[in-house]
Amino acid sequence: MSDSYLTFVNSPWGRRLAQAAGLPQPLPLQRHRSGQQSLVNPVIVAGAGRLMTQVQRVFSDTDTVAATPATLNAPSTVKVQGAVFDASGLVSLEQLDELYRFFYCNARRLGQHARVVVLGTAPEHCADLPQAVAQRALEGLVRSLAKELRRAITVQLLYVAPGAEDALDSSLRFFLSRRSAYVSGQVVRVHAPVDGHVTVNWDKPFAGRRALVTGASRGIGLAIAQVLARDGAHVICVDVPQAHDALQQAAGAVNGSALPLDITAPDAASLLQAHVSQYGAFDVVVHNAGITRDKTIVKMSESAWQSVLAVNLQAPLCLSNALLECEGLNPGGRIVCVSSISGIAGNLGQSNYATSKAGVIGLVQGLAPRAATQQVTVNAVAPGFIETQMTARIPLMIREAGRRMNSLSQGGQPIDVAETIGWLAHPASGGVNGQVVRVCGQSLLGA
Amino acid sequence: MSDSYLTFVNSPWGRRLAQAAGLPQPLPLQRHRSGQQSLVNPVIVAGAGRLMTQVQRVFSDTDTVAATPATLNAPSTVKVQGAVFDASGLVSLEQLDELYRFFYCNARRLGQHARVVVLGTAPEHCADLPQAVAQRALEGLVRSLAKELRRAITVQLLYVAPGAEDALDSSLRFFLSRRSAYVSGQVVRVHAPVDGHVTVNWDKPFAGRRALVTGASRGIGLAIAQVLARDGAHVICVDVPQAHDALQQAAGAVNGSALPLDITAPDAASLLQAHVSQYGAFDVVVHNAGITRDKTIVKMSESAWQSVLAVNLQAPLCLSNALLECEGLNPGGRIVCVSSISGIAGNLGQSNYATSKAGVIGLVQGLAPRAATQQVTVNAVAPGFIETQMTARIPLMIREAGRRMNSLSQGGQPIDVAETIGWLAHPASGGVNGQVVRVCGQSLLGA
Repeated sequence: MSDSYLTFVNSPWGRRLAQAAGLPQPLPLQRHRSGQQSLVNPVIVAGAGRLMTQVQRVFSDTDTVAATPATLNAPSTVKVQGAVFDASGLVSLEQLDELYRFFYCNARRLGQHARVVVLGTAPEHCADLPQAVAQRALEGLVRSLAKELRRAITVQLLYVAPGAEDALDSSLRFFLSRRSAYVSGQVVRVHAPVDGHVTVNWDKPFAGRRALVTGASRGIGLAIAQVLARDGAHVICVDVPQAHDALQQAAGAVNGSALPLDITAPDAASLLQAHVSQYGAFDVVVHNAGITRDKTIVKMSESAWQSVLAVNLQAPLCLSNALLECEGLNPGGRIVCVSSISGIAGNLGQSNYATSKAGVIGLVQGLAPRAATQQVTVNAVAPGFIETQMTARIPLMIREAGRRMNSLSQGGQPIDVAETIGWLAHPASGGVNGQVVRVCGQSLLGA
Repeated sequence: MSDSYLTFVNSPWGRRLAQAAGLPQPLPLQRHRSGQQSLVNPVIVAGAGRLMTQVQRVFSDTDTVAATPATLNAPSTVKVQGAVFDASGLVSLEQLDELYRFFYCNARRLGQHARVVVLGTAPEHCADLPQAVAQRALEGLVRSLAKELRRAITVQLLYVAPGAEDALDSSLRFFLSRRSAYVSGQVVRVHAPVDGHVTVNWDKPFAGRRALVTGASRGIGLAIAQVLARDGAHVICVDVPQAHDALQQAAGAVNGSALPLDITAPDAASLLQAHVSQYGAFDVVVHNAGITRDKTIVKMSESAWQSVLAVNLQAPLCLSNALLECEGLNPGGRIVCVSSISGIAGNLGQSNYATSKAGVIGLVQGLAPRAATQQVTVNAVAPGFIETQMTARIPLMIREAGRRMNSLSQGGQPIDVAETIGWLAHPASGGVNGQVVRVCGQSLLGA
């Protein structure tokens, strides 16, 4: 799981060699550490939309810096760690010039690892066509900047629905923190929360909450359990009975409980329902368990097809239905699924896996409106190349290509997926529903 | 614009060398030629949805071949040129197995250049969650097969709305012909036509119709004019007054008219409206004119930003509005815009271009429902790497990478974009509205 090239290229000799040879020069990502100030600081705040109050409130305890005025041709050299441009008031194509001028003047001021967030109004909420077109155009700008700013800088676009201004906090805090180090070029929609206004403990958001995580005994699942536990949750770790020892260890490590369960078993749903009647409902359910059985379709066995579909798609569908049916998720509950870049773009030799992970997107989009009636959200992360035991088995050259083919020129860590799930599962994220967010360093791969 | 690697690798020595070195081995695409039978033949037809009648009708004059039954372990070796699987009746995850079995048994029977189409019901039209999930899962399968079948085979997913069965013909004919040689991995939705049922001349669909094409004096614009003219249209070729000679030549070559017009001029809209009152309304309007002014944002001049936005986005928005306002498009009219992979995925050094092309997607999606009330559709193509004078100026190594980073391992030709526009502009394509279809050989690049 170690990326020896990343280490090499950040050594004095490696840096010189990579520069001379024109090789990718990834910067080791700075990730959030417990006890660390969560928001990056200082941050430039600019623009003139309906979200400025919200932005200022989030930053009330930290520094904000004035944007370099567009009239100055020599941009200020004071480095900042982030930038927020509120473009929600943008109503015409001409006003797009303001974003050009802002980034033209201020892009050089962004320090390494800076976080950039553009706020907008989704086209479907715009009053007229020119406004909708201008707002939709922001996607092209954000995705281009995410590709060209480099230096481990990330750039996102958050579309905030009119009336949902108060629901922005958790998303703004996530994308302006080191927690989102491996998320870039994403477009996220924030709506009015499904569960009304909540009072949040920003240090321990999951305190007093129960979280179920499938496939929790190792890799990404273990990291998810750790992040939720770190942030206060009691985590019920699920894995197949065969993984008994690893599962006990994982549950112990997060001060949680172990629940050995084959999620594909015919009685899995009723066992989970029984668990709920005995111990109470969940606040967070993370469908992380997943398997791969890669082969091209002409060489794929029927069992390779069926087992991947059963674990990755049938189980999340069946268990989500069962939990919602028995009110197994409390109001304010969160279901988070794990899709994949393969589910978005397809992949050679992964027709079974990609089918299952595309289905997960259908599950999220189809279930979200229904779950909202129980004040529950349903979202998914779509990991790109994440350094795990699974990806360590990929042949060297393909692994190297997979690692570098993204704007951060490196693979992500399980913690990156886990932090993103932590945001989606957050009590204050009730405005984020039915979304698929990629954790891929803005992988080049797409549909 | 010549791809010397493509030529080399298809020579006897080149083929051996490429095989030995594990280099990409693109196959020269077979494209439609005038007078040629349009549909590929023979074709396997399988599945059991509500679209079989439609499929059989399209193939009534050509051969269809029975699918190899899933029970046979030794797939038949009779080669076919295409396959259609009607999955519109798919209601559960278990039924996805039928698609696995079909492709497991029949993928080897697909000849070089075969066309594969999977037909489905869009998740938003499904009666329940399992059906919606299964239908959404098809995307992952189709995109994976498009990546792994190779040999210049293309694979698409057409979601046909219930009640829109009769609107499928033009799309089926396009995707099962050599006209769609460079389109792969696409998901297209077919709805009830905005303009009711039309009687179609499949040989000369544009006979008696007037088409306006901007930027028509060269490259992709010229190819569009040629395809529309070949299929019967009277083409009004638009280009800037400076391109006078090339424009006259283009108009002459397609037996059309030349209309010198700076589409960014303040009076462009009123000039076009005047043209309509004098000569009559259009049936097809193709907003093809586009420019690039590439620079990273910190080095981009304000004029580079503004001119790209003005030509690529402001003009199509302004002219479309003006034409709809004066009923400058006849009922059954078609507006087709040209977006770009850059508009979908963003691009380094193209923040202006990507912003404009993302805006074009907003234009298409925002204008489509409104245009439908005038029985007009609005769609876009999003070209990937197309061999033109524009791409010939890209430095060699970057050009080589751009060419190969798609499932067909080659750049497309202007004719590929033109044929796709011909389908969207087709009188029988009234059921395709508000869509963005990539012409990119399933480029790896995506959002």
